[in-house]
Amino acid sequence: MIAEILAVGTELLMGQIANTNAQYITSRLQEAGIEVYHHSVVGDNPLRLDLVLKDSLKRSDIVIMTGGLGPTKDDLTKETVAALFGKKLIRHVESAEKIEGFFNRLGREITLNNLKQADMPEGCTILANNNGTAPGCIVSDVLGDVVLLPGPPNEMKPMFEEYVMPWLMEKSGYKIYSKYVNVFGIGESKLEDMLIDLIEGQTNPTIAPYVKDGVVTIRVTAKCADDEEGFSLVKPIVDEIISRTSDCVFSTDGESLNEVVVKLLKTKGLKVAFAESCTGGLLASTLIEVNGASEVFDRGFVTYSNQSKIDELSVNPSTLLSFGAVSSEVAAEMASGVFRKCNADICVSITGIAGLDGGTHEKPVGLVYIGFKTHEKEWTMKSNFWGNRQRIRSIAVLSALDEIRKYCIGKY
Amino acid sequence: MIAEILAVGTELLMGQIANTNAQYITSRLQEAGIEVYHHSVVGDNPLRLDLVLKDSLKRSDIVIMTGGLGPTKDDLTKETVAALFGKKLIRHVESAEKIEGFFNRLGREITLNNLKQADMPEGCTILANNNGTAPGCIVSDVLGDVVLLPGPPNEMKPMFEEYVMPWLMEKSGYKIYSKYVNVFGIGESKLEDMLIDLIEGQTNPTIAPYVKDGVVTIRVTAKCADDEEGFSLVKPIVDEIISRTSDCVFSTDGESLNEVVVKLLKTKGLKVAFAESCTGGLLASTLIEVNGASEVFDRGFVTYSNQSKIDELSVNPSTLLSFGAVSSEVAAEMASGVFRKCNADICVSITGIAGLDGGTHEKPVGLVYIGFKTHEKEWTMKSNFWGNRQRIRSIAVLSALDEIRKYCIGKY
Repeated sequence: MIAEILAVGTELLMGQIANTNAQYITSRLQEAGIEVYHHSVVGDNPLRLDLVLKDSLKRSDIVIMTGGLGPTKDDLTKETVAALFGKKLIRHVESAEKIEGFFNRLGREITLNNLKQADMPEGCTILANNNGTAPGCIVSDVLGDVVLLPGPPNEMKPMFEEYVMPWLMEKSGYKIYSKYVNVFGIGESKLEDMLIDLIEGQTNPTIAPYVKDGVVTIRVTAKCADDEEGFSLVKPIVDEIISRTSDCVFSTDGESLNEVVVKLLKTKGLKVAFAESCTGGLLASTLIEVNGASEVFDRGFVTYSNQSKIDELSVNPSTLLSFGAVSSEVAAEMASGVFRKCNADICVSITGIAGLDGGTHEKPVGLVYIGFKTHEKEWTMKSNFWGNRQRIRSIAVLSALDEIRKYCIGKY
Repeated sequence: MIAEILAVGTELLMGQIANTNAQYITSRLQEAGIEVYHHSVVGDNPLRLDLVLKDSLKRSDIVIMTGGLGPTKDDLTKETVAALFGKKLIRHVESAEKIEGFFNRLGREITLNNLKQADMPEGCTILANNNGTAPGCIVSDVLGDVVLLPGPPNEMKPMFEEYVMPWLMEKSGYKIYSKYVNVFGIGESKLEDMLIDLIEGQTNPTIAPYVKDGVVTIRVTAKCADDEEGFSLVKPIVDEIISRTSDCVFSTDGESLNEVVVKLLKTKGLKVAFAESCTGGLLASTLIEVNGASEVFDRGFVTYSNQSKIDELSVNPSTLLSFGAVSSEVAAEMASGVFRKCNADICVSITGIAGLDGGTHEKPVGLVYIGFKTHEKEWTMKSNFWGNRQRIRSIAVLSALDEIRKYCIGKY
């Protein structure tokens, strides 16, 4: 079974956004055991869209389209698909009511073009949009199946997962079973070296590492008849990866580090509190991304200026003077300062030089100290991170979270 | 003049990487005044590549290809292009010597397949690769021009800028001048309603709104002979957009809201301090993303628990009891609490229900109060945001930043 992806949107042709939807969908299609040989992008232009879609339907069984379902005049994907298949657009009452309800709840006036989003090709399967106003749909014809999905990734992804992926799995007839092993603290190329015999020696399951935002994910993927067979193929490999990388694996289910840390803290009944300088609230914000973080997060201080470190955390002015704000000593005093102020069990501080400015020969951009204070002990970590301001800040946050994780699993 | 982009690489079809090369090249093509109507991706498969390339040459004057120039067996772009045009591949001596020199310098043994990278279609223009081993080339034929570029962005971009962009500018003969008007506080469809006569009435410049992460960007693009003419075509439209949307335009140069706010605060010599509940440090972190934010940011409190609101911000326990943590009253007391604790000029608080849990009929998920306290006055804003936890938090942050901006420009 062959599928291809056709993205519609002049903003893609103008270069305002990258086609990350295609990347997402194509990797899921692989996992559903469906071949993908083509991606295309075309603008909000019905003539060109019609021509490209016809070509796509000639060479693929399924065409997955993204974009052009919105309320504006240049959103013409449904119109073009309906015309190609000789179908009318019919107002879908339930979707229209949902859109009206959405505007009512917001207390906003509904415009006519918003209701156009509920006009769907006759006979199609409606895919409800639980994160926006434009529903998607699947139009099936002798020419092939066309899946229409909204362009915004936060609407497209949940719709794809909820409705399209199960439909694709059923069509494809076999299963893909994957485990995502997430590793922090070992670089991608070093990790590949450590696993090269596994990566090259395996055809089922396959093993593929990739890096994103400082975390290396190793995808272990088996083609199988069912989950049970998949699990039995994948488990020995995952176990071997864990044994080679020891404490650096933080999840074998693709969970992010903040999710793992919140779960561990909940299980242990521990609370954290933070004092952040260069990360400026990013550590707290990353933890709080996780639903239910309120149970494990006590409070945070964003003490960017020296004065705020003195005022809020009782950092000794002479420590700041002697060692500088970016030092092991100040990190330790920041962590102790938070510890005294609240009832948290693990208090973490971050102070560093994120750049662009502020680096010196002794203290270059990327130098970060992270301090920890618990009931039993206190310690600091020194790191030299590379990259731009945003990368240094986010790697510092991951390092702090990973150290909390290690504390929770009894490394200390 | 019409160009299109054809990326070659199975890694794109597998979803290992997004096609960021296409995004880069397409935006540069716009700036060179060249129309782009299609992007395509095809795997390292000569049959399919040949078919797609033929289609591309039928509808476009120039096809810019990326990828498939490397040393491995599946790199077949040059072979396929040469075959289509009936040309031989000929070893380019200078490129071959360069590749040999590269391996010698690294002290690595050169393999035969590495020299394959120097085999180029006869009669082509060679594009030297100063950041890798595979040269690019331009093959010109009655069918059209085909530009072959390496896949790795760090090799592709410099090659494109040094050789391809000047060649394109000369071919195109005119320029594109764009302004990006960023708007917060008006939804995409309402904004389109407000500007529909401009959008529909204009062919040069063209006007196109798109939304990303809660901000609507209106791109105003003119075809012109030079920057001066471009400016004179674009300016009246930008002025008209500003006059219709009044205070909601925060940038006409594509700057992000945090950048605009930091710049305004610097100019006015004002400092901010924050007290965050549901956003959990995201407001502080977003401001601190901007290099140099230290000049305008005093400190922040992440007071997620009621106790921390009482301890750190002196919120009255009876206010929490009577009105709840998510209330105008608590937002006001949080902002006043920060104001008393530091010397900041604008103190901002955020308290709300970001979900998934915690919503009630009276206080649904998405309800957010933002409090402000300055030397002269204090006020709160109530909002009902829609979307998931992350969207609610990030829109709350944008709303707070936008209100700071409005205060700075004298709206209050």
